[in-house]
Amino acid sequence: MKTFNEITQIVTTELEKVSWEKEPKGLYAPIGYVLSMGGKRIRPALTLMACNLYQEDVLPAVNTALGIEIFHNFTLLHDDIMDRADVRRGKPTVHKKWNDNTAILSGDVMQIAAYQFIAQTPANCLKPVLDLFSQTAAEICEGQQYDVDFETRNDVKAEEYLEMIRLKTAVLLGCSLKSGALIGGAGEEDAQNLYDFGIHIGLAFQLKDDLLDVYGDEATFGKKIGGDILCNKKTYLLIHALELAQGEDAEELQKWLNTNDESSQNQKISAVTELYNKLGVKTICEDKMSDFYTKAIANLEKVAVSDNKKQELRKLAANLMSRND
Amino acid sequence: MKTFNEITQIVTTELEKVSWEKEPKGLYAPIGYVLSMGGKRIRPALTLMACNLYQEDVLPAVNTALGIEIFHNFTLLHDDIMDRADVRRGKPTVHKKWNDNTAILSGDVMQIAAYQFIAQTPANCLKPVLDLFSQTAAEICEGQQYDVDFETRNDVKAEEYLEMIRLKTAVLLGCSLKSGALIGGAGEEDAQNLYDFGIHIGLAFQLKDDLLDVYGDEATFGKKIGGDILCNKKTYLLIHALELAQGEDAEELQKWLNTNDESSQNQKISAVTELYNKLGVKTICEDKMSDFYTKAIANLEKVAVSDNKKQELRKLAANLMSRND
Repeated sequence: MKTFNEITQIVTTELEKVSWEKEPKGLYAPIGYVLSMGGKRIRPALTLMACNLYQEDVLPAVNTALGIEIFHNFTLLHDDIMDRADVRRGKPTVHKKWNDNTAILSGDVMQIAAYQFIAQTPANCLKPVLDLFSQTAAEICEGQQYDVDFETRNDVKAEEYLEMIRLKTAVLLGCSLKSGALIGGAGEEDAQNLYDFGIHIGLAFQLKDDLLDVYGDEATFGKKIGGDILCNKKTYLLIHALELAQGEDAEELQKWLNTNDESSQNQKISAVTELYNKLGVKTICEDKMSDFYTKAIANLEKVAVSDNKKQELRKLAANLMSRND
Repeated sequence: MKTFNEITQIVTTELEKVSWEKEPKGLYAPIGYVLSMGGKRIRPALTLMACNLYQEDVLPAVNTALGIEIFHNFTLLHDDIMDRADVRRGKPTVHKKWNDNTAILSGDVMQIAAYQFIAQTPANCLKPVLDLFSQTAAEICEGQQYDVDFETRNDVKAEEYLEMIRLKTAVLLGCSLKSGALIGGAGEEDAQNLYDFGIHIGLAFQLKDDLLDVYGDEATFGKKIGGDILCNKKTYLLIHALELAQGEDAEELQKWLNTNDESSQNQKISAVTELYNKLGVKTICEDKMSDFYTKAIANLEKVAVSDNKKQELRKLAANLMSRND
């Protein structure tokens, strides 16, 4: 069994072996730039860890793992254009450093590159992995579209939000795990349990993100606290606050949602945070997160490999829940 | 053997069977819109015709053919954003009818949908067809990037231009033919000859496009004549004109390249066309086109199936050369 650190070391090494110094430079240089920005490499790590549950040698799953990581970074690249986000991980985004057209076209070829790595999945499980990957990729686009649709809706239900984050975030974790498991030789039932483990970890992960945006520590979080509040993002917290607020609270919440001037930013963040506390939505979100975490662990327990082999996945899941960044 | 008309009828019928009325509508409706705009469906027809050289039943190649057509339309969708083209086939483009973000995201999922169809290639040739498709898709992005790069360069050589159109246009015709041939059971040599036939037809096809833009008949061409001249597009004609023009001709050509005001549009078109005639670049372009056409026919002759089976491909090639639209 390999530790999480050993696994991410393999991911990093293999990813660095891939050269993007190809012609035309205007097309490929942005891909190298995006992939050199770093990131936790959780998805490819999950693929290799799932494979490692069934066989010591994880190299047969490496190309699939890289394909998933390249696809993930492609979605960030195109999402950043759509969100007009100028900075990611402290650096200018591709459409900012180059331009929109470059970001569109480099993203397109990045998606193709992802498929070229997925196509190197061992032949005996290429078809199921390829189909799962395509289905997942389409679902991620669907999740992004729902996220966009929600911006202009005021009646988003908590269940709809959870479905959106399942599509936008959770399915890729499930796909990463299931692909690795299939390559390792897992049976369908184990592969499905690992997929469900990924879904539940992903849902919990996103709720943690919603919480960190409001209750995180700016120094460790790496982003400005309250960003979601300032742009009225319909997070699990805001959706519940809108549902629960009555009378004066509802009026105050609405007033702040209509306040967008720069001079009242700090006031808006503290006032909305106070409303969240008063309405108990922090607890609601934390409870839901714990609920998903418990379900994830239950999925993992059902996987039919010896208990000690699951230790690294269990640790990773716990770390994702207690993370501060 | 099926005629070209029978083949395109199959393509149309099968393409219409695919439903894009899925949720979220904002994501999938633009795909249905783009595919309902029509088009000649030459690429999927080539796939089925190549398959038909080796077996009567072309249905095993249908999903691959549709994947290629969906991919082709995806490239048009994203190219239209990058080119700020507002109209295609007489209708508003997706980014105009919806918006840029919708066009980006619908395009992304359209590319995934293309792969989902390609993945339904019969198992015995999935891997080579998938690899050829990905390589081709990447090359098309490279061609588009070179096309963009050429806009801001004044020293584009004819050879570079031909390489650009090989990537941007010809490789997909080659891929369409080779995929169909492989599915039909062709040997590697036949498959390669059909690929090369596609490349040469594609190159001739694009030179024909350059010619039609200047010398076409507006009524049948469907686009305004002289569009390439007005935007100083570095076509095969302009590249040669820039190379050949001396003294006063060079000065006049340069003057018109620097003239962008709307009131002199018609003057610019007729002046540049006259220079083209004087410099003989129309003949140079026609000769090169014939040259590629001859090479294409030579490639087709080498394909080891009985001569009468090649008749439909031969006719299609001839029609593409003599087309007026």
